[in-house]
Amino acid sequence: MAWKQLAAEKKSHQLDGVPKEWLPSNLPSSETLNVIDFPQQSGVLSALDLEITESSVATLLSNLASSKWSAVQVTTSFYKRAIVAQQLTNCLTEIFVDRALARAKELDEHLAKTGKVVGALHGLPISLKDQISIKGIESTMGYISWIGQVAEKNSVLVDILESLGAVPFVKTNVPQTLMWPETFNRIFGRTTNPNNRSLSSGGSSGGEGALVALKGSPLGVGSDIGGSIRIPAGLCGVYGFRPSYNRIPYGGCVNSMEGQDSILSVLGPLSSTLDGIQTFFKAVISKEPWQMDPMTIRKRWSDEEYNLIDHGNGKRLCFAILWDNGLVEPHPPIRRGLEMTRDALVAAGHQVIDWKPYKQKEILGTIEAIWGSASTEDFRTVLASSGEPLITSMKLAHEEGDTPFLVTSDTTLSAFALWQLHKKKRDLREEHLKHWTDTISQTATGRPVDAIISPVAPHTALQHGWHKNGNYTMPWNLLDYPSVVIPVSKVDQALDVKQPRDKFYTAEDRKIHELYDPATYENAPISIQVVGRTMEEEAILAMSAIVDEALKLHGTKSKL
Amino acid sequence: MAWKQLAAEKKSHQLDGVPKEWLPSNLPSSETLNVIDFPQQSGVLSALDLEITESSVATLLSNLASSKWSAVQVTTSFYKRAIVAQQLTNCLTEIFVDRALARAKELDEHLAKTGKVVGALHGLPISLKDQISIKGIESTMGYISWIGQVAEKNSVLVDILESLGAVPFVKTNVPQTLMWPETFNRIFGRTTNPNNRSLSSGGSSGGEGALVALKGSPLGVGSDIGGSIRIPAGLCGVYGFRPSYNRIPYGGCVNSMEGQDSILSVLGPLSSTLDGIQTFFKAVISKEPWQMDPMTIRKRWSDEEYNLIDHGNGKRLCFAILWDNGLVEPHPPIRRGLEMTRDALVAAGHQVIDWKPYKQKEILGTIEAIWGSASTEDFRTVLASSGEPLITSMKLAHEEGDTPFLVTSDTTLSAFALWQLHKKKRDLREEHLKHWTDTISQTATGRPVDAIISPVAPHTALQHGWHKNGNYTMPWNLLDYPSVVIPVSKVDQALDVKQPRDKFYTAEDRKIHELYDPATYENAPISIQVVGRTMEEEAILAMSAIVDEALKLHGTKSKL
Repeated sequence: MAWKQLAAEKKSHQLDGVPKEWLPSNLPSSETLNVIDFPQQSGVLSALDLEITESSVATLLSNLASSKWSAVQVTTSFYKRAIVAQQLTNCLTEIFVDRALARAKELDEHLAKTGKVVGALHGLPISLKDQISIKGIESTMGYISWIGQVAEKNSVLVDILESLGAVPFVKTNVPQTLMWPETFNRIFGRTTNPNNRSLSSGGSSGGEGALVALKGSPLGVGSDIGGSIRIPAGLCGVYGFRPSYNRIPYGGCVNSMEGQDSILSVLGPLSSTLDGIQTFFKAVISKEPWQMDPMTIRKRWSDEEYNLIDHGNGKRLCFAILWDNGLVEPHPPIRRGLEMTRDALVAAGHQVIDWKPYKQKEILGTIEAIWGSASTEDFRTVLASSGEPLITSMKLAHEEGDTPFLVTSDTTLSAFALWQLHKKKRDLREEHLKHWTDTISQTATGRPVDAIISPVAPHTALQHGWHKNGNYTMPWNLLDYPSVVIPVSKVDQALDVKQPRDKFYTAEDRKIHELYDPATYENAPISIQVVGRTMEEEAILAMSAIVDEALKLHGTKSKL
Repeated sequence: MAWKQLAAEKKSHQLDGVPKEWLPSNLPSSETLNVIDFPQQSGVLSALDLEITESSVATLLSNLASSKWSAVQVTTSFYKRAIVAQQLTNCLTEIFVDRALARAKELDEHLAKTGKVVGALHGLPISLKDQISIKGIESTMGYISWIGQVAEKNSVLVDILESLGAVPFVKTNVPQTLMWPETFNRIFGRTTNPNNRSLSSGGSSGGEGALVALKGSPLGVGSDIGGSIRIPAGLCGVYGFRPSYNRIPYGGCVNSMEGQDSILSVLGPLSSTLDGIQTFFKAVISKEPWQMDPMTIRKRWSDEEYNLIDHGNGKRLCFAILWDNGLVEPHPPIRRGLEMTRDALVAAGHQVIDWKPYKQKEILGTIEAIWGSASTEDFRTVLASSGEPLITSMKLAHEEGDTPFLVTSDTTLSAFALWQLHKKKRDLREEHLKHWTDTISQTATGRPVDAIISPVAPHTALQHGWHKNGNYTMPWNLLDYPSVVIPVSKVDQALDVKQPRDKFYTAEDRKIHELYDPATYENAPISIQVVGRTMEEEAILAMSAIVDEALKLHGTKSKL
């Protein structure tokens, strides 16, 4: 069939521009599951390459600005490591080595000539989820229909990143339609989890998750409509940030279900250090993206809010932990991650109480009804031009028959029915804000709870094809709460033993319980979300740093 | 029929709580068209009542805070004048004298006891468009179906206004469905224009327009989805402000087409002085409405933006005048208003260039398609419970057969079709921002145009039933540009002679041209809009003050 040939042809040229010496000759066999440290042994990266790629974003920017490291050097180091990561986990889509190095060279020349950096991200390589358009490069998003669809101009974010001196250098893999928490499509194939390749990298920004976890990129940009930044970040063990609607400009990107404006997809960063997340956000906002994208909120970075003016200046905070959403009970390692976070925060002098979940089932049902109102027609329209079928399972054998994630309806709704769902959504948001505000009676701070600590999913990364649940991320999307994912630990067979259960909320809860056994998930990252109120980006970044510090300090202490 | 009785019954009790001595015995006959100065001659208002009701908001607040005037006194003065206004123009819906005076008394007692005002609006009476819910009071919005629908709680805005010390004291009239630029419904009847009662007050916040013009309220709150604040403000000759989406909290209001989230209705103030507009906006934002309404943008008032940091600190601005949108050529008085504004701004040292309209027809078509996607079903659903028919004409005889304003479709669209319209809307917003940004090549400031000066409508107030055009207000709603209406002059038979025309854009353009003759519109207010970019509330308020000052100075000079 023509669509299969088209896909195979495109994939066959993926590595065309890659220097042969960047391709490791000693790749581990597919039976080697944990490849997270392979880049050091690959023979591709020099000592300097390793030093560079294992530096924090702050160190990279500082050494780039001082010309200790050139942009060409830094871009080359990360590119090598990204190509190794590609060989290990299949995390990339578009690769454009010459172009990125040419850009890096320009930046070096600018710095040499003027003595000044181009901007706050001077020389920093940045990876981009496939849907973020770069002029002259394809944005297929895993749709065979879109092969050959070359972007005529940069997306607004790429223009901004370039004006900041960043070097976009690879694009990363996604699932067909984007509406899955795993990553597989028929052009680029499947992205695996570098901590354990029998497990999913998460999705839809799964390419970013795997690449950043392997330190093949210091900073990646994903998108999140129901967990698509947070799930791969959490499952791969890196930091990820879902900002509120319309703070990072989305203009000029391609997308699934375009025009679905009820529960918006947002762009946000993934990084192996928290400072990368914050640097990205502050730098992008500093460029006043609302001057280029009319949908972006005109709101400058607020030092006041970052200094926690709305949260008692951060002196003593009250966090509330969502242990269980009442629909699917988290697996033992997830519970351990929450307990570690609680202990760390209490040890740091903060108050920690329980978060009572509010109408989770209604919230999830409303999201599914809204997306389902026209998703089927959207996918059908895109697929029609190539004849490629809709992917209905993420399993290894790609057998058909699963329910496509979040495509719940065979018939589209009327606009009037959609309006009624918007009323439901608004009511839920109003009620949930009141639910939050009312926690003032349970805190010792004189304020409502400052932030919620939540699982990212009821489980760590699962075996391919089994992750069908966005229940711990999606509600924050409907509520438009910003959320930072923080890695906490990894599955340990000794600590995370299976706990017997007699009672289950639902058949799905039972099924997910049965999936757990410690051996299968060995080494899978355990992560949490720190969740704030709508448009509290600055505050949630500051509070995440407090949580992260507490975890690091507590982890160090408990190891001593 | 039952619905007619229901409506008549409700209307018959409208003045039940009004002291008899507030009802003037010398009302002008219906042949007296200009009643704008009647309150002074009504015999109802004392000299002090007149002094109070003719004071600016700043003076009122200052004299209330100093206890020179009590809240009971100020509320009583405005209530008397509002009742006179009601007799003249039929501008009110709900009247609750005892309740407002009891609230005013509480405020006086608080101030006497504590020496402190309750908040920034201490003792200020505020009128509210009927849809803004007050606990215990009906919000019928002119729908007979909603008679008896008593609000169980305050809307968020009313809670905030009360916390600021304001005294909500009357609710004001609207057209059935709200989707008309005139004001008539079958419960409360028609609101007329106090400058010339043969003309429309505009709509849908027509009750506010007439009431504020008669100084029956120092500050009113309306709503605007396509011009519903700006048209009545402009046609009645007062200041009006349409802020960007979601800056003033809408939570808890009733509305037409609820769940239509594509082009949002917003709340905003009307006042007879510009300081009232600004005081309202700043005071409401200071209460952090996002803590109570999750849809409201978390953005504090910015002195930086008010000081025009994005506009060269306001030293020399460049305004662009939209003389003609290419669809309907404005009547002679409207053109004169724009010319006066141009001359005033040039005299004040600012640059003035022409604004080239961009895709106005496409923008208007997209709006109509979006609203029409389900408006018919929405209206039908509401009307069904009473049996009241949809109003399809605003003419005096209420003859049927006109096309209901903006209800363009007999069949509702699918959600998928609505998604496609959202893409169109986004593209238009992106293109229009670029169109604006590109004006940098035409200005002498080094910046793009700072603000647009636009007509409010292609004509002043028209005779009842003839206003069917939102063409000069609606585009700013799709683009989400904030806009302040400023009164400039009034129709003058000597100055505003009819100009012959040979060529017309469309049949509608010809029809509107034919409607003009100076005698019919004698004394009708002429107004302009000052339009800024999305979420530039602070800047557009500051620039409006600059325009208003320039007009006042220039007007004074030219009279000398």
